[in-house]
Amino acid sequence: MKIAGQSFRTVWMPREGIVSIIDQRKLPWAFECLDLKSCAEVAEAIRDMAVRGAGCIGATAGYGMALAAREAESWESLEALAVHLIATRPTAVNLAWAVNRQMKALKGLPRESWASVAKAEAEKIADEDATACEQIGQHGLKLMREIATRKADGVVNVLTHCNAGWLAFVDHGSALAPVYAAAEAGVAVHVWVDETRPRHQGSRLTAWELGQQGIAHTIVADNAGAQLMQEGLVDLVITGADRVARNGDVANKVGTFLKALAARYFGLPFYVAMPASTIDGGLEAGVGCIPIEERGADEVLWVAGPDAEGVERRVRVASPGSGAANPAFDVTPAGLVTAFITERGVCVPGELACQLP
Amino acid sequence: MKIAGQSFRTVWMPREGIVSIIDQRKLPWAFECLDLKSCAEVAEAIRDMAVRGAGCIGATAGYGMALAAREAESWESLEALAVHLIATRPTAVNLAWAVNRQMKALKGLPRESWASVAKAEAEKIADEDATACEQIGQHGLKLMREIATRKADGVVNVLTHCNAGWLAFVDHGSALAPVYAAAEAGVAVHVWVDETRPRHQGSRLTAWELGQQGIAHTIVADNAGAQLMQEGLVDLVITGADRVARNGDVANKVGTFLKALAARYFGLPFYVAMPASTIDGGLEAGVGCIPIEERGADEVLWVAGPDAEGVERRVRVASPGSGAANPAFDVTPAGLVTAFITERGVCVPGELACQLP
Repeated sequence: MKIAGQSFRTVWMPREGIVSIIDQRKLPWAFECLDLKSCAEVAEAIRDMAVRGAGCIGATAGYGMALAAREAESWESLEALAVHLIATRPTAVNLAWAVNRQMKALKGLPRESWASVAKAEAEKIADEDATACEQIGQHGLKLMREIATRKADGVVNVLTHCNAGWLAFVDHGSALAPVYAAAEAGVAVHVWVDETRPRHQGSRLTAWELGQQGIAHTIVADNAGAQLMQEGLVDLVITGADRVARNGDVANKVGTFLKALAARYFGLPFYVAMPASTIDGGLEAGVGCIPIEERGADEVLWVAGPDAEGVERRVRVASPGSGAANPAFDVTPAGLVTAFITERGVCVPGELACQLP
Repeated sequence: MKIAGQSFRTVWMPREGIVSIIDQRKLPWAFECLDLKSCAEVAEAIRDMAVRGAGCIGATAGYGMALAAREAESWESLEALAVHLIATRPTAVNLAWAVNRQMKALKGLPRESWASVAKAEAEKIADEDATACEQIGQHGLKLMREIATRKADGVVNVLTHCNAGWLAFVDHGSALAPVYAAAEAGVAVHVWVDETRPRHQGSRLTAWELGQQGIAHTIVADNAGAQLMQEGLVDLVITGADRVARNGDVANKVGTFLKALAARYFGLPFYVAMPASTIDGGLEAGVGCIPIEERGADEVLWVAGPDAEGVERRVRVASPGSGAANPAFDVTPAGLVTAFITERGVCVPGELACQLP
């Protein structure tokens, strides 16, 4: 996607032995790229969340292994680097998947071919992620077009929650891929961006992404969704997913469930867009079965950001002495999902198992 | 209610010619009272939101007229002070109501009796507000007791949105009155406090109130409600109301509607607690008929609060260059309301007209 008119991916190899990433810790306040020169530097970038989002972490780890393949003198030292890389974010499924895919690709090959094979495999992992997201966009585009033809003003109003944009992948994104595809195809689109408390991924990352692509958007408090729908200002909801069970239950950023309920109440379509790899084939149902990560109370009790002079500050937004709970995800029951949009097409929850990769 | 163990109302007359208020602009960071010595000072306190909430504003205006009755040399000058007072918050229905009630009480009386009559009327207005809220608490207590007897651990988990506590009235509050009554009666209660973006009335005022009364509570992001219900951690929802139509549609702080939808999905009771004066007898239905106040975008794009050193700061929480919409209220359809709790009792939406004052 574009930043100030120039095309970027979230991670790439500009030349031999260098992995470049967009430093997402600085967004949306500053756009900076980082050159990582070793597998250890890649590991540090993943651990410190300079990159985030399933697809983006997976691709970055793939490139990290390309550097590891140059550095390692023996299979044992390569394995040690792989273990180190996986340990940076133990719950990130795509990370371990990408690293293991690289190990499998290199297994049994002579030491001198590792660098070129691992580099090619890393590019393949990144390309596959970008292509899957692009296809999600094309499948979603059809749904957007249908809605546009029904609208008197032709403008499709999408509501989205959290960030499932291209920053979370290598390119295009999942929930935002149909939006980008629609804009590219000349369909008029406007996005309601849930700010996504407590970490503000919506007002920070999604709004920044949309702004860079020149797509009309408006940030709202997470509380506003039902009100906007009641006023007829929303045509469809599209969110991403962190994990989808075989039956179609969707674990995603906390608050997704509330928007699915509102969409159902108003008879609006609620779509979940994600690469098919997000479907957990081993998980029959999600409700009651997916453990919900509980994050620190300080994310709720304090808010950090730059002041008007650009100095980073941290302010209290809660009564001192009161505690907070901070569940990071919720599980939207499959019955509230109109359809899933994956790289393989659009399907209702009951057909999801056919989309398994 | 109590602050640091001492009983307070939100507004009172400590002695002749003085109206005292809790300066709510300083909460929850500091507890300070203000002595207002003239009708003009009362008007300024209302205009600058040192007092807020329908009941509290009405009672303060009643006391303001008690000062006006001492100051005014003629009926014309009294009328001028009344007009000035009403103009401070033109949309606050209780304000005009209290001022007009005072004018009616004083009409035709000799100048020398104004001060004593207006003071007595002001006390009556405040007492009526406090009594109505206390009765809301007693009616709600029965509902809380019923739930407590069904719970294995005996703890009633309430979820509330925004602040409809005693700070918004003279005493006791509306949504929180049943909570205070339950705690007083020895029913174990725990409150999930929605932070209530964008103005954080939940994490700031509701959490502070509950903390001062020693009531167990936990602040959550507004996004968490459905997740908490799914985990079985909520027994009932109680919110206040800004305006209720005859059919039971409820205008309240934006986000209320989403919690009503979640409660319905999980089969949990959703109660709206408010004095019967909140029912707008002239409004048949609320959905589509109540204009929604749109507040400034900066409330969404920036967050203000004290830093760790107590210095007030303002930080950006959104991508620079992106705009925001900020609807302040939403209208929950009557069909999602289990029952209303007023000073007259508990009633379903269809019976609401019988509760009209």
